[in-house]
Amino acid sequence: MAGQENPETELADAADAAVADGAAEPERKIAELEDSWRRTAAELENLRKRCAKDVIRAREQERASVAVRWLPVLDNLERALEHAASNPDQIVEGVRAVHQQALTVLADLGYPRRDDETGKAFDPARHEAVSTVTDEDLVPGTVAHVVRPGYGPDGEILRPASVVVATRSE
Amino acid sequence: MAGQENPETELADAADAAVADGAAEPERKIAELEDSWRRTAAELENLRKRCAKDVIRAREQERASVAVRWLPVLDNLERALEHAASNPDQIVEGVRAVHQQALTVLADLGYPRRDDETGKAFDPARHEAVSTVTDEDLVPGTVAHVVRPGYGPDGEILRPASVVVATRSE
Repeated sequence: MAGQENPETELADAADAAVADGAAEPERKIAELEDSWRRTAAELENLRKRCAKDVIRAREQERASVAVRWLPVLDNLERALEHAASNPDQIVEGVRAVHQQALTVLADLGYPRRDDETGKAFDPARHEAVSTVTDEDLVPGTVAHVVRPGYGPDGEILRPASVVVATRSE
Repeated sequence: MAGQENPETELADAADAAVADGAAEPERKIAELEDSWRRTAAELENLRKRCAKDVIRAREQERASVAVRWLPVLDNLERALEHAASNPDQIVEGVRAVHQQALTVLADLGYPRRDDETGKAFDPARHEAVSTVTDEDLVPGTVAHVVRPGYGPDGEILRPASVVVATRSE
């Protein structure tokens, strides 16, 4: 009954509590913020590690997925060689089919063979000049002859075509 | 001179300042924490976006880097076919060389051809049974014959070997 006896003391206690509460409020807020910040920082650290792993795994998966597409090409090369023993004439036909298959694999991967470069203006983005030729019948600065074909679409050239460039006669 | 005149007022002012300072301290701390948290959260978001892009770019780079390794195989196939026209006997030799080159590409990518499976115990992790054969000379449950070779090291089989499995005679 001590409390009830002195209302003034009770009021002072309440005021103290209010003050204490006022002090606890920012402290609680600080603790909460520190906790949130710490958790976000931990998430950031985890993501950093996971990201590095994801990149490595993506590479591995892509390497396997591209490599596996070449196995049928290899199988057919082997078949062509096996048949060559019993029927030598068939090998050219077989190898031609394998070659077509290999071109299809590359095109499916997004790297079609670039044909029809002969006669086009030399473009260092997709041509690599291996030599030049002087020919009255050719326009100087154009591709006279493709030595080795290029692969890949414009803007994503996997390998430029090796070409002989026509030059002006002197 | 007003301040100097009443030391009691000065003391009260100082006390007020101390209280105000005490109040500003947690507020400043809260603002700092909020700022730190916000920056870490923004970093997390940026990393999330960058990570997704990194994975996509890693795939693209890997696809290109694997595909480009096959171009010399293709070039040599074409050369073998070109020579075949003038010298048909050479094509077998040429294709055999291309085949070896293709095996080397796969091995370099981490997927060597798996040879020597014949006679080994059938293992679903690296063998795929395409048929069975009953043969008194063979141990039942072993590989009687490889129809199509497997590729890739233990634990990272790119393709299991297609095999004929020896079974017990009944």
